[in-house]
Amino acid sequence: MIRFDCDYLEGAHPLILKRLSETNMEQSIGYGCDEHCDNAKALIKKICDAPESDVHFLVGGTQTNTAVICSALRPHQGVVSPETGHINIHESGAIEATGHKVLALPADEGKLKANDLDRYLTENENDPVREHMVQPGMVYISFPTEGGTLYSKQELTELYSVCQSHGIPLYIDGARLGYGLAAETNDLDITDFAKLCDAFYIGGTKVGALFGEALVINSDKLKKDFRYIIKQKGGLLAKGRLLGIQFEVLFEDGLYFEISKHAINCAKRIRRIFENKGCGFLFDSQTNQLFPILPDSKANALLEKCAGEIWCSVGSGKSAVRFCSSWATTEEKLETLEKTVIEIL
Amino acid sequence: MIRFDCDYLEGAHPLILKRLSETNMEQSIGYGCDEHCDNAKALIKKICDAPESDVHFLVGGTQTNTAVICSALRPHQGVVSPETGHINIHESGAIEATGHKVLALPADEGKLKANDLDRYLTENENDPVREHMVQPGMVYISFPTEGGTLYSKQELTELYSVCQSHGIPLYIDGARLGYGLAAETNDLDITDFAKLCDAFYIGGTKVGALFGEALVINSDKLKKDFRYIIKQKGGLLAKGRLLGIQFEVLFEDGLYFEISKHAINCAKRIRRIFENKGCGFLFDSQTNQLFPILPDSKANALLEKCAGEIWCSVGSGKSAVRFCSSWATTEEKLETLEKTVIEIL
Amino acid sequence: MIRFDCDYLEGAHPLILKRLSETNMEQSIGYGCDEHCDNAKALIKKICDAPESDVHFLVGGTQTNTAVICSALRPHQGVVSPETGHINIHESGAIEATGHKVLALPADEGKLKANDLDRYLTENENDPVREHMVQPGMVYISFPTEGGTLYSKQELTELYSVCQSHGIPLYIDGARLGYGLAAETNDLDITDFAKLCDAFYIGGTKVGALFGEALVINSDKLKKDFRYIIKQKGGLLAKGRLLGIQFEVLFEDGLYFEISKHAINCAKRIRRIFENKGCGFLFDSQTNQLFPILPDSKANALLEKCAGEIWCSVGSGKSAVRFCSSWATTEEKLETLEKTVIEIL
Amino acid sequence: MIRFDCDYLEGAHPLILKRLSETNMEQSIGYGCDEHCDNAKALIKKICDAPESDVHFLVGGTQTNTAVICSALRPHQGVVSPETGHINIHESGAIEATGHKVLALPADEGKLKANDLDRYLTENENDPVREHMVQPGMVYISFPTEGGTLYSKQELTELYSVCQSHGIPLYIDGARLGYGLAAETNDLDITDFAKLCDAFYIGGTKVGALFGEALVINSDKLKKDFRYIIKQKGGLLAKGRLLGIQFEVLFEDGLYFEISKHAINCAKRIRRIFENKGCGFLFDSQTNQLFPILPDSKANALLEKCAGEIWCSVGSGKSAVRFCSSWATTEEKLETLEKTVIEIL
Repeated sequence: MIRFDCDYLEGAHPLILKRLSETNMEQSIGYGCDEHCDNAKALIKKICDAPESDVHFLVGGTQTNTAVICSALRPHQGVVSPETGHINIHESGAIEATGHKVLALPADEGKLKANDLDRYLTENENDPVREHMVQPGMVYISFPTEGGTLYSKQELTELYSVCQSHGIPLYIDGARLGYGLAAETNDLDITDFAKLCDAFYIGGTKVGALFGEALVINSDKLKKDFRYIIKQKGGLLAKGRLLGIQFEVLFEDGLYFEISKHAINCAKRIRRIFENKGCGFLFDSQTNQLFPILPDSKANALLEKCAGEIWCSVGSGKSAVRFCSSWATTEEKLETLEKTVIEIL
Repeated sequence: MIRFDCDYLEGAHPLILKRLSETNMEQSIGYGCDEHCDNAKALIKKICDAPESDVHFLVGGTQTNTAVICSALRPHQGVVSPETGHINIHESGAIEATGHKVLALPADEGKLKANDLDRYLTENENDPVREHMVQPGMVYISFPTEGGTLYSKQELTELYSVCQSHGIPLYIDGARLGYGLAAETNDLDITDFAKLCDAFYIGGTKVGALFGEALVINSDKLKKDFRYIIKQKGGLLAKGRLLGIQFEVLFEDGLYFEISKHAINCAKRIRRIFENKGCGFLFDSQTNQLFPILPDSKANALLEKCAGEIWCSVGSGKSAVRFCSSWATTEEKLETLEKTVIEIL
Repeated sequence: MIRFDCDYLEGAHPLILKRLSETNMEQSIGYGCDEHCDNAKALIKKICDAPESDVHFLVGGTQTNTAVICSALRPHQGVVSPETGHINIHESGAIEATGHKVLALPADEGKLKANDLDRYLTENENDPVREHMVQPGMVYISFPTEGGTLYSKQELTELYSVCQSHGIPLYIDGARLGYGLAAETNDLDITDFAKLCDAFYIGGTKVGALFGEALVINSDKLKKDFRYIIKQKGGLLAKGRLLGIQFEVLFEDGLYFEISKHAINCAKRIRRIFENKGCGFLFDSQTNQLFPILPDSKANALLEKCAGEIWCSVGSGKSAVRFCSSWATTEEKLETLEKTVIEIL
Repeated sequence: MIRFDCDYLEGAHPLILKRLSETNMEQSIGYGCDEHCDNAKALIKKICDAPESDVHFLVGGTQTNTAVICSALRPHQGVVSPETGHINIHESGAIEATGHKVLALPADEGKLKANDLDRYLTENENDPVREHMVQPGMVYISFPTEGGTLYSKQELTELYSVCQSHGIPLYIDGARLGYGLAAETNDLDITDFAKLCDAFYIGGTKVGALFGEALVINSDKLKKDFRYIIKQKGGLLAKGRLLGIQFEVLFEDGLYFEISKHAINCAKRIRRIFENKGCGFLFDSQTNQLFPILPDSKANALLEKCAGEIWCSVGSGKSAVRFCSSWATTEEKLETLEKTVIEIL
């Protein structure tokens, strides 16, 4: 069986494994204070045009989200998220476990709209019994969203403007940032993320690394003592240089962007495979996750040969199924998928 | 100005103050281990026909809800609540502050429906990625609800049956239990609450006491070490006998039920006052909270003379306004309200 | 049996009960926004000569300590406390339940010494692996201490100076503040507390009130959004005016100081009763709690007639036993104690 | 400069890197449900002779400790630890951040003594005000301890017997388990750990892996829903197979034990190097961490050439310095250390 059910099926880009081998017997001080981390941080700050930002490396996304959010909030505050946000659904209550409510707002194709946010924040500020309610203290969005959609530069600019006018920091979960940046319809540059939010992370786990996320903190208020928080949340890897080395490889020669582009090309191919059979899609994804809607009977037959993840039932005996491309998707697997889809659907 | 905006406007029923004065110079051991507490517990267990239940006294509702819920849940669990539930909206994130998500389900007139709950719990149990989601570990409802509505005996029986079939305890917030029991349409008896849920509390703050709630724990699994939790959450009153004394007065001669009945009679009068002017209501409340819908212009004029709480806008220049009766509502105030409503609306 | 085992044995000073009765049928808005609270706050600010401080009323000490400490700390910070501090021993882990370590330092007669604190804070700041340790973020002390001892003005000044030089706020638990101020050896005035710490509370529960503590926040940094925290921690009493009324009575004519003085006079008498029988004391208490050391055999006989609290064994078949006076101690009870001690020891 | 300051200086044993490369383009389902994890779990259960135990893989030690401890405790409980325990000192308050106090008991050479534990637990159970104190709910020890010392089989048996007689689970932090098992004075076998505690972990990070710890849960009560907890605490690695592969390599042919033995041999050499110069040691370590006591002046000169970690001052101008061996220590580096020590001391 071949798999397309997620974008963390394989190990790492071979260049990363190669570098890990080459550096294996170097001796480094621990916990991310080594030269590889320093170098990777400098590369990321340069590529983001963000000399004043802080960069930290963490092992995974849940950890990163938890650390940033709990570090930013006071006890009576919560984090605003689109209702489809990863922190609201698929992190086993990690945010709440640190004491904070996820304040879920309606989402449009997975995206939080500036108007909705502004209305919510304004109403909250004016509520005479607001002290009995959770105070919004941060806004969380994902780029790309969990449905593969993208904020345009205009949308992100407006959203950040709303946040700033209410004095609330904006944090962007970039678990698949590379795939968002590489999308054809995208008009945001990585340097925009240093300007249009208070913190964001550059996902490595799903974009070529064995594991690891690079958190970029733009806002001074969020920088203080952040390493304590990483340590407390179990995210301070003893051999921190493993993270530094991986991000060095990803960012020293543009590998991150190159492999993201590859995944997007593969995703276009997957989209066509299903479009050709007349399938509709759950979201209008422009990135590496696609959610074709399939009759349940056919879906089961297909998934036995080409794994996808059943996302949700959409009624009438049909379900949306997630198929992902990634840096590791091969031409050969795409061909098998195409053949199988043609055969079964 | 006279007030109807809530049901905690006055002090306590005069008999309670009298008893507090009479017992004032008695010496009691602290923290609820005194004879007044013992006696009040025995009275409540008897009146609930619940000889095996544990009774604890806490100062207020948020404390009680927090203590029960955090005591029952493991770290990865959350508490299911109708979306309008008090814990989901008006307790400043107290539940989340103990590490647990409030899992909000749609509410119908403030009530959680057994079918909706069953579907949600079943779907969660069958979800292949349920380990990435918060596990439901308790169900919370209010009787009466925040909108003044009531579960029928049939509805409560069905709801509890769903909870039991999924192995999840049911907890009932009875901040206004007396007013629910006294309602004309109510078909539940206080003894039913010892049989149809795992824990519930008998609200004193809003029903005649200066302050205080009597928590009744029916389920053995929820009993263990509960006093530690009360202490940790700041709910173990040093002079615990103050709570015992108040509940002695409320339950030794049926005072709790008698003053609740009075409030319901007053509520019927308030309902008629607004109905007579052709007002609709936000909820079909059968208890002491009424939510007439008033044109905003008239509402403001009315509230300057007779305080009510603006609950929410309902569009078209109209708002629902909460007017409450209580044990303390006087004929005189009702007359003033009637006159003013007639004058202004 | 008569009791001296703690200072919360009786109800409230009769003037408080009288006022509660007189105001009982007034209608007040809830949650501490009423005129009685406003008036009581003004009285306290005046008597503390602290026009810029914020005053809040909470129900009990554990709640107050928890609210202040969790509000002040970031997630990676802890609160320094003498090892004998109430928060470190007798609050069932309330502070830890909000996510923060109590950093216990050695205590001398229950007191934290400025030198010890300075050394600890300096070492922590210079520790190369401090990010792996809990960062001290607040200092907690009690006045009087749990052993009845007092900080002199010089000691408190030095301690606060150490806190300020390290940028860490100082918070003082004044559960028995009145008894400390009334002590003969005390050289601190209540106005000093508005200058020599960032926040402190004036205990009511143990000094004449039914319940209630008045928190005074001097530092601007600790003021923001504090009512949200009180609500979240279950400390925002619905009928907040009950707290306002009690503190009005205590502070409008000096009642708080007068009844404290009475308790101190009674304590001197208790001290003499035991000294006359040659007893030593566990702590050199200058306030209303005394800890005479008694042979275990005699202690048991005595406690059957005059309750005291066995504090700890001191070896050699002897134990320290706590005897407390309070605003409610009567001449008659003191005489009985004296007679019984003479008889038994 | 060469380094001996910790045991996580290098990457991973070459066989692990080789296997990661060989398996790199395999497609595995995520989050530890893959065949490599299944296989590694089976290997570990076999080698521990623990067919009924559950095995989970987590990324690091702080995460593992936090997940186990917070999963086992109810809100009012704390975890007993020797005062030198890692969770008490060097995890940035990770345990407290989940709401639980670390109950520190005196340690003897880093070890908790069965008698001390028994006395503490008994006193707590008998304390009349125990509800005001944190209830001990788990016992944590390390094997080897943070000072490199070891519990004998007799000591561990006694300790576990005390835990069992008080109904409290015992958890063992085995960050350096391999080095403990390989020590000459050790009389415990890895199979003993499946019998003499309720849960323990087999450290990979410090013993040959890039990262990763294998948690073995023996007690049924601790098994339930543990994967939810791992996910919530950010420990469920997306590419879980990376952990499975590493533990397959470590345990399929005894590599874990072999490289541990190597480290112990190197440690003996380091010990002799310092003994030959007449140095004393802070702890009587039998494992891979050694704490020679050096004059501060000489220490600084030495550490410029051969890095060690200054552990603590021992007074009189002397400090204890940590030198570690590991699976990666080379003969060449040992020779350099020896030469340098001879030269400088």
